[in-house]
Amino acid sequence: MPRSPIPDYVSEFLAEPNPAVIATLRSDGSPHCVPTWYDWLDGDVMLNMDRSRKRLNYLRRDGRVALTVMDSTDWYSHVALIGEVIDVRDDPDLADIDRLAMRYNGRPYANRARDSVTAIFLPTRWATWGARFARL
Amino acid sequence: MPRSPIPDYVSEFLAEPNPAVIATLRSDGSPHCVPTWYDWLDGDVMLNMDRSRKRLNYLRRDGRVALTVMDSTDWYSHVALIGEVIDVRDDPDLADIDRLAMRYNGRPYANRARDSVTAIFLPTRWATWGARFARL
Repeated sequence: MPRSPIPDYVSEFLAEPNPAVIATLRSDGSPHCVPTWYDWLDGDVMLNMDRSRKRLNYLRRDGRVALTVMDSTDWYSHVALIGEVIDVRDDPDLADIDRLAMRYNGRPYANRARDSVTAIFLPTRWATWGARFARL
Repeated sequence: MPRSPIPDYVSEFLAEPNPAVIATLRSDGSPHCVPTWYDWLDGDVMLNMDRSRKRLNYLRRDGRVALTVMDSTDWYSHVALIGEVIDVRDDPDLADIDRLAMRYNGRPYANRARDSVTAIFLPTRWATWGARFARL
């Protein structure tokens, strides 16, 4: 996988509200993965989760994560990112989850009582696969 | 996450040709994830890859993998599986990759020169999330 920086055509893809899956490490070192919203902050990936989510513990214990971002109309076309979580912070006014909800659903996040936590993921390597990128 | 056996309503979902992402462990123990075709063999998950794929080395080195299977019309609704690869075998006549290509594309695999390898993943824990399962 090439090292960052991420080229413009990949950055433009990541800026779209595409489906994504995050992989984290459980406490025994085994992998775990689930779909996630994300936003692309021109080099960093913003993630957000409720404080009760197990993956918050996972990524605090070991910040090494991977993210796969799929084309919304061709899920096999994807960008794979690997790297580390460089910041975990509270989101008390729900600014970050609202940003994600607007990006994916076009409206603020419904549950205003969410105990919202933001993680910033810095990808250090990237790869592309599939028809969308083969056409470039 | 509940332990297997996997209940019928989850098994029925896994039998659909849904988008999926597999997470494996790189040689330094960090996670990696990519989209993958799969088939559900009533308790086991069949995966197939070209012999040149790095994740074949990853799952031979450490068989602990995770798979997330998403609803094709609502990617946030998903089944998350964790467990171990229990068999890796050659697929010299392309029977397994053809099975996957028929399942997802309705036709046999195009590249008849593929150096095809099959992995069988046994999920030991499972979880569901999202609207599709909330309605049950």
